[in-house]
Amino acid sequence: MLITSNLQPIGIFDSGLGGLSVVNAMTALLPGEDIVYFGDTGRVPYGTRSRQTIEQYTAQDIAFLQSKNVKLIIAACGTVSSVAFHVGEACGLPFIGVVKPTAQEAILATKNKKIGVIGTAATIASESYTKEIAVLDPSVTVYGQPCQLFVQMVEEGFIDADDPIALAVSKRYLQPLIDQEVDTLILGCTHFPLLTDVIRKVMGDGVTLIDSGRAAAKAAAKLLGDQNLLSDKSTGTQTYFVSDRTEAFSDVAGRFLGREIPTVTRVVLE
Amino acid sequence: MLITSNLQPIGIFDSGLGGLSVVNAMTALLPGEDIVYFGDTGRVPYGTRSRQTIEQYTAQDIAFLQSKNVKLIIAACGTVSSVAFHVGEACGLPFIGVVKPTAQEAILATKNKKIGVIGTAATIASESYTKEIAVLDPSVTVYGQPCQLFVQMVEEGFIDADDPIALAVSKRYLQPLIDQEVDTLILGCTHFPLLTDVIRKVMGDGVTLIDSGRAAAKAAAKLLGDQNLLSDKSTGTQTYFVSDRTEAFSDVAGRFLGREIPTVTRVVLE
Repeated sequence: MLITSNLQPIGIFDSGLGGLSVVNAMTALLPGEDIVYFGDTGRVPYGTRSRQTIEQYTAQDIAFLQSKNVKLIIAACGTVSSVAFHVGEACGLPFIGVVKPTAQEAILATKNKKIGVIGTAATIASESYTKEIAVLDPSVTVYGQPCQLFVQMVEEGFIDADDPIALAVSKRYLQPLIDQEVDTLILGCTHFPLLTDVIRKVMGDGVTLIDSGRAAAKAAAKLLGDQNLLSDKSTGTQTYFVSDRTEAFSDVAGRFLGREIPTVTRVVLE
Repeated sequence: MLITSNLQPIGIFDSGLGGLSVVNAMTALLPGEDIVYFGDTGRVPYGTRSRQTIEQYTAQDIAFLQSKNVKLIIAACGTVSSVAFHVGEACGLPFIGVVKPTAQEAILATKNKKIGVIGTAATIASESYTKEIAVLDPSVTVYGQPCQLFVQMVEEGFIDADDPIALAVSKRYLQPLIDQEVDTLILGCTHFPLLTDVIRKVMGDGVTLIDSGRAAAKAAAKLLGDQNLLSDKSTGTQTYFVSDRTEAFSDVAGRFLGREIPTVTRVVLE
């Protein structure tokens, strides 16, 4: 559980593969860091489960990353960051969720004090972004909108800005936020950055999109810097673990990372 | 475990809520039967899990229904019917899955010997319908098509035949089956009957749609009749159990059943 070296890897976990967008952001920011990724693909999605179940899964995910000797853990999962953040805070390692860094970035971006948040039904129902923003700047109004089809749409690859499915679904979900005239939109799910083009097309160029995974990666980089825990290597490695069959992993992972994945290992957490 | 009365309830289980379409079909066919439903919403989906895990879950689901003194069990879950049918057959009660009755009905319906099957990725990858049909009539060709967005689309209520989302998604998934000129289409997932209107619009009136849940309900009704186990009451009751939080149950359940659900009880199986 101890941090004994700045060369220990960074642990990133998610209920599925969406957290790979955080791996992407992390390697772009800090290419010298080793990264261990765990995607709980055998139990995805977390968002529809009970609080108790989500807490239990979070504890198991964190224990797995700790067994890999990580120096910091990022919960790339909006559901975990919203519902089970306290489980991560209690783990004894620096722990970063997606909610707080994203809320901070959105507050800096908004001019008209109207921020939209899109995410899974569970993330929106938890009002985690709304509550965090209310603490940081009570003058901001937050409009939440669940977008349940987006995750599966990304995994199916229906993501082009001119894809009729991506457009129809995006218009349905985003119209209420357009009507509220939000000038800043939080992509409150790590799958959603892959829909940036279509979301921008529907929302218009006047709206700033905040990528929650990227915000979390930036916060992690700052925290490691503050604690003198940055790797001094020039190139890091990435190691991938999932809890379901690995066959389907490569297609989706390639879409997130924009490159081939060398290997992925299956682990079962109980 | 014994059947001592024709007034014992029928047990129906599924990995989630899709099996409610079988409850619907059952109450329409046999309104005098009491029904006990169990939806394993805390462990949905089964389709991505290992064979061993699916067998274990199936045994637990069946044991729960047996504790409710049922006289017959229907596995409304395509995954269970494909992967763990032998577990049900060994339970000591009449046991019906969705695959065999559906395959039989599709073979009776097809004229040109080209049958399409739509389902979750796991159901299609298992080739359970293809194998069953090959046994019953080797001259039939089966075309499988995974439709991953359909389940979530139903749960969101995007099901109208003129809904732009339902239409765009259905066209994307069904076009390959239209190209193959199937004249019969198996709705190989108990969520899909709610999409009947849009699927019929896209496929055209010349294609016969086979509802797997309804086929299973008809097979169950026939089996009970053959064994003189039909209820002689005029009106039956329905009792609902799920394994995850019950809050979200009512909306989705109401959509499947077309009526309000009085109560649902949470149970945890271990």
